[in-house]
Amino acid sequence: MFSAGDVRVIDAPDPVIQQPTDALVRVVQACVCGSDLHPFHSMPVTAGGRPMGHEFVGVVEDVGTEVSTLRRGDLVIAPFAWSDGTCVFCREGLHTSCLHGGFWGADGIGGGQAEAVRVPLADGTLVKAPVAEGSELLPSLLTLSDVYGTGYHAATKGGVGQGSTVVVIGDGAVGLMAVLSARQLGAARIILMGRHLDRTELGREFGATDVVAERGAAGIEKVRELTGGLGSPIVIEAVGHLPAYEQAVGVVRAGGVISRVGVPQYEDAPVGFGSLFGRNITLTGGPAPARAYIETLLPGVLDGTVQPGKVFDLALGLEDIPKGYQAMDDRSALKVLIKP
Amino acid sequence: MFSAGDVRVIDAPDPVIQQPTDALVRVVQACVCGSDLHPFHSMPVTAGGRPMGHEFVGVVEDVGTEVSTLRRGDLVIAPFAWSDGTCVFCREGLHTSCLHGGFWGADGIGGGQAEAVRVPLADGTLVKAPVAEGSELLPSLLTLSDVYGTGYHAATKGGVGQGSTVVVIGDGAVGLMAVLSARQLGAARIILMGRHLDRTELGREFGATDVVAERGAAGIEKVRELTGGLGSPIVIEAVGHLPAYEQAVGVVRAGGVISRVGVPQYEDAPVGFGSLFGRNITLTGGPAPARAYIETLLPGVLDGTVQPGKVFDLALGLEDIPKGYQAMDDRSALKVLIKP
Repeated sequence: MFSAGDVRVIDAPDPVIQQPTDALVRVVQACVCGSDLHPFHSMPVTAGGRPMGHEFVGVVEDVGTEVSTLRRGDLVIAPFAWSDGTCVFCREGLHTSCLHGGFWGADGIGGGQAEAVRVPLADGTLVKAPVAEGSELLPSLLTLSDVYGTGYHAATKGGVGQGSTVVVIGDGAVGLMAVLSARQLGAARIILMGRHLDRTELGREFGATDVVAERGAAGIEKVRELTGGLGSPIVIEAVGHLPAYEQAVGVVRAGGVISRVGVPQYEDAPVGFGSLFGRNITLTGGPAPARAYIETLLPGVLDGTVQPGKVFDLALGLEDIPKGYQAMDDRSALKVLIKP
Repeated sequence: MFSAGDVRVIDAPDPVIQQPTDALVRVVQACVCGSDLHPFHSMPVTAGGRPMGHEFVGVVEDVGTEVSTLRRGDLVIAPFAWSDGTCVFCREGLHTSCLHGGFWGADGIGGGQAEAVRVPLADGTLVKAPVAEGSELLPSLLTLSDVYGTGYHAATKGGVGQGSTVVVIGDGAVGLMAVLSARQLGAARIILMGRHLDRTELGREFGATDVVAERGAAGIEKVRELTGGLGSPIVIEAVGHLPAYEQAVGVVRAGGVISRVGVPQYEDAPVGFGSLFGRNITLTGGPAPARAYIETLLPGVLDGTVQPGKVFDLALGLEDIPKGYQAMDDRSALKVLIKP
């Protein structure tokens, strides 16, 4: 990406092993993330561009001398942050705060929307999946890179358990994965706020019990009607824009939790007596340590219990990535799969 | 209080029983709260003034026909919110969100800085203490009205448990009660941020293991030094001003919790990627349901295990309340006891 709206496919030097802990991965499937739309709207002109993509599954082509858990030919899932897996934060399951880790497309590391990627700290970062390169499970495995883990993080941090009532704000891929995750964790009532019928229908398939298409005051009123007038004890905010945050404040029950996983496109927001404090609302969430959840979520994907790959409704070749951004931006696609 | 800085003692009509669920309480001890200083700084001119005080212990003088748990002569503790004790929120222990409750000094209910108060929903609101009117335990019992319960709420919502590391921001009465509560809940390391030596010494007596007098960047650096460079997993913010919130963001560890009990004197604050979101910080807290904690905390007060009443360092008669506000405002008193 060279600036807002300007995505180009260019020839870049082939990545090579640089550190003994690196792996070289040939990308089999990647995708475009809802969060990629934020720079697609606002990125200033950047000389040389910025490598994009932080979700990919691929095949290990080469490993550094210190990589011990992976070998050439392994099919691997890459979470959206790379991490050593051994530091104090990784041991606590907060891999996005890894003391030695980082993010794709920065600091000399490429992005996943590419033919190949050099993966740092490969033993800590990559998770091997017992499937072949041509498996039909690949799109579902790919969701473990980010959106499924992010939805699961939202539900986990929100405290979803048996019988919970949950509101999910946003019918993008992360919102739908939050619905799926809330259902897996036992939620009895899942109210999905979104107004794209094809998406909310998929949300119902994933477990939403109610859909509220209204926004703003009307949406808040509708949710309150559905929750005995008091609001929802758990609210997942899967958008990232300030109105979605305000919506969350409006529908949350006193004593409840707002769990955010939409990357905030604001820094300041209301948190004082009139919004969070007066009603003892807890605000939680953040970038999901997707790596932490892969082992937990992988079995259900492998045995077909869940089919998170259904969020992909458009598949393109690498050369068509600019079209993929456009399709997600104009909402004609929910989530775009890229096959290099 | 008639406006910022203008506190007067005036003759008011004696309160009388109005509802069958009311009790009439003669105030034995009341006090001035750190949160009373907020209107003391900023209240606009208010015709007729506003009754002040939300912390008192007293003796029941009369009860309405439907009051069943109290009788004339009982010594009672009044929490800083009145509540029915039976609604869905009260049953969950969130009495400050009681569907039928409210706060002292509003909606025709008087304040505790008075000779007598009409207490609505008396069965739900008041807690009987098995002591006499002249008991030396009264100041400690009085802290159950607010500051002790508020400190305990902060520690509880922050998730303090055996072996926890906690930073407490603010050496006012609530901060010191948060120290005491964190210690009771098993915290191993309690870092108190405050710069009034007499207060931080009392903080050490209550259980603080470290005191950091520095503020701002220097204070943050000091706390990070004390916590292995990573910050504290639990931070209690017991001030309410924006710099204290920013201090909390600065000293909290990735994945940690900021528990606020200082009444926010701001509505908007940083919560985006650079402050809370990027490091998965949880923001929690609010007005303490003091009522919910009285039964838990009362035994320790009665048997002398804890002596929270030590926060009172100045006792005045009702007629001297204006001096009490002044003394707390200029920090010559930590917390002022009022004996009508």
